Amino acid sequence: MWGRPRRLALLAEGRFTPVDAKTAVGVLRYRPEEVAAVIDSTRAGSTAGERAGVGGAVPVLADVAAAAAAGADSLLIGVAPQGGELPTAWRASVLDALARGWDVFSGLHAFLADDPEFAAAAARTGARIHDVRRPPARRPVAAGRAAALEASVVLTVGSDCNVGKMTAAVEIVRALEARGERAAFVATGQTGMFIADQGVTVDAVPSDFVAGFTEELVLEAARTATFVIVEGQGSLNHPAYSGVALALLHGACPSLLVLCHHPGRTHLRLAAAPGAFPLPSLAELVEAYERMSRWIRPAAVAGIALNTLGLAESRARDACEDAARETGLPATDPVRFGAEPLAEALVARRRDHAPPS
Amino acid sequence: MWGRPRRLALLAEGRFTPVDAKTAVGVLRYRPEEVAAVIDSTRAGSTAGERAGVGGAVPVLADVAAAAAAGADSLLIGVAPQGGELPTAWRASVLDALARGWDVFSGLHAFLADDPEFAAAAARTGARIHDVRRPPARRPVAAGRAAALEASVVLTVGSDCNVGKMTAAVEIVRALEARGERAAFVATGQTGMFIADQGVTVDAVPSDFVAGFTEELVLEAARTATFVIVEGQGSLNHPAYSGVALALLHGACPSLLVLCHHPGRTHLRLAAAPGAFPLPSLAELVEAYERMSRWIRPAAVAGIALNTLGLAESRARDACEDAARETGLPATDPVRFGAEPLAEALVARRRDHAPPS
Repeated sequence: MWGRPRRLALLAEGRFTPVDAKTAVGVLRYRPEEVAAVIDSTRAGSTAGERAGVGGAVPVLADVAAAAAAGADSLLIGVAPQGGELPTAWRASVLDALARGWDVFSGLHAFLADDPEFAAAAARTGARIHDVRRPPARRPVAAGRAAALEASVVLTVGSDCNVGKMTAAVEIVRALEARGERAAFVATGQTGMFIADQGVTVDAVPSDFVAGFTEELVLEAARTATFVIVEGQGSLNHPAYSGVALALLHGACPSLLVLCHHPGRTHLRLAAAPGAFPLPSLAELVEAYERMSRWIRPAAVAGIALNTLGLAESRARDACEDAARETGLPATDPVRFGAEPLAEALVARRRDHAPPS
Repeated sequence: MWGRPRRLALLAEGRFTPVDAKTAVGVLRYRPEEVAAVIDSTRAGSTAGERAGVGGAVPVLADVAAAAAAGADSLLIGVAPQGGELPTAWRASVLDALARGWDVFSGLHAFLADDPEFAAAAARTGARIHDVRRPPARRPVAAGRAAALEASVVLTVGSDCNVGKMTAAVEIVRALEARGERAAFVATGQTGMFIADQGVTVDAVPSDFVAGFTEELVLEAARTATFVIVEGQGSLNHPAYSGVALALLHGACPSLLVLCHHPGRTHLRLAAAPGAFPLPSLAELVEAYERMSRWIRPAAVAGIALNTLGLAESRARDACEDAARETGLPATDPVRFGAEPLAEALVARRRDHAPPS
């Protein structure tokens, strides 16, 4: 990761749950070989597998010293809190890591390298601070360029934040590759960047250039892939993040969409206004995403990816059947039941729309 | 402006036309008493009134020295080019102004104060560089809070960039005030900020916080106004700027919208892809903006503001009649024919929806 193999300690103090520590969970799921430990003193003594269902025997430990003893050599901030600040109680852990000469990886909006105390600590030991959310200095303006690609661009869209758009994208890439397709993952958020070692965290980019960066990433990925799977952000029905969602839709110019949803959720998960915004139905969301794509490049929803975390297996299967019936589209939990139905649908749609040879 | 009365020189070298120099034109229209000169050597010897239809006898001069002779004491960058860079040829003018101790006002994405040569020049004379587009350091996350206001929030939305959303908002405020209403203008772009001496240029804000800043501005304005008129940005059908438009819609939580359009325009005005994107019809845009508002706060389009710049008067009147017929809504060019029909429609809609007393 970022230049050399790592033995990461994932900092998730007090928050190491599948819902709150989604960055840690994403790294555990897709780069487990680089994780030495999770840090959460409130859950110390257990394993990542027990607490989050991923990461198997990776130990959950009390602090940076314990993670060092377990072989860690780098620290990764494992949460992405709303607003993007570092929890104050975590400063000591970051300083401890930097004092040991560990590189620190952060996807927070608040850039750690700009913090004088952290910068001084890093300078003393030669540690590097990687704020992956810091936007590139360029200012690309989108112009629908990705609409002309021969590759099939697929965007994962959602009913809310934190419903599995990044995970669905990665699982679809793997399922397409398993079918022999050349597929590329385009990371647009901090967790995706930690998994892919590249990308742009578009929600930190000045809003004029979100679509432009997305367009750049898609054009680059399409040079070597037949399927470009773009990680979505936010949702069209979210009061804070709808703009990011629409910019991705118009920057990526997908022809196909995968709609992601958590079937246990009835309202937007919004800390400041819980229960204020009921989620639209899946059918309404399908129609809205397709409708909003039309002016730039018409896109069709090809399948539904459910995040059934927390549901019993039989309820999870029922949820997939319900979603398929409501929308007339294949529906699966790509983590629990596999992404093959989605990969199959994408390949079929591409075949149906190929120009006659 | 920004702390003291000014005698501004508006830098618009080679671009002093109503379409290209929209920042200069906005300042000339709404703060003419603070403008000493326009700088454009290709049009020197004429007046602002002759060239742009605003600013009357304000002279167009060749350079900073000539503007100084005309009494200027501050420089304002009068263009907002796509991408937001300072044209290279303009560096000498900025340096000349700073060497004279003039404060420099810029709404560019590229912050002049971060340029080492400009910073050094300013330090030598004590001049100040005001990069009004620099986002505040806060990270507000929207949560639909503006939906609960007793004030009527009105957002100007558009069919494209540069169709008069800022101008329509200012004209509506004036027309409401002329009717005795308490109205406030919320500036969300650099020209609006130069006119209002406050606001946030939301297109430079990290995309996660565009709706949040908009919400903050609206809540603040509503403390003293019955009508809060919010300057819109971009348009839902624009490949680069649709995200900003949707974030404003969901952050401001308007109950009423005014749709702005240039009737001479058939396609998006996009330098990189001219002619690629035909504009939707007004009726389609009305439906789309209302539809996309619904999940957060339902809004209704109350009127159409046309920018008929460049059309003969009879064609401009025809365009207003056509727009009114197509949408069933009052339509006017607020600059040419006055914003009263829009103000009247907003007052009537507010009255219709007032709770019984």
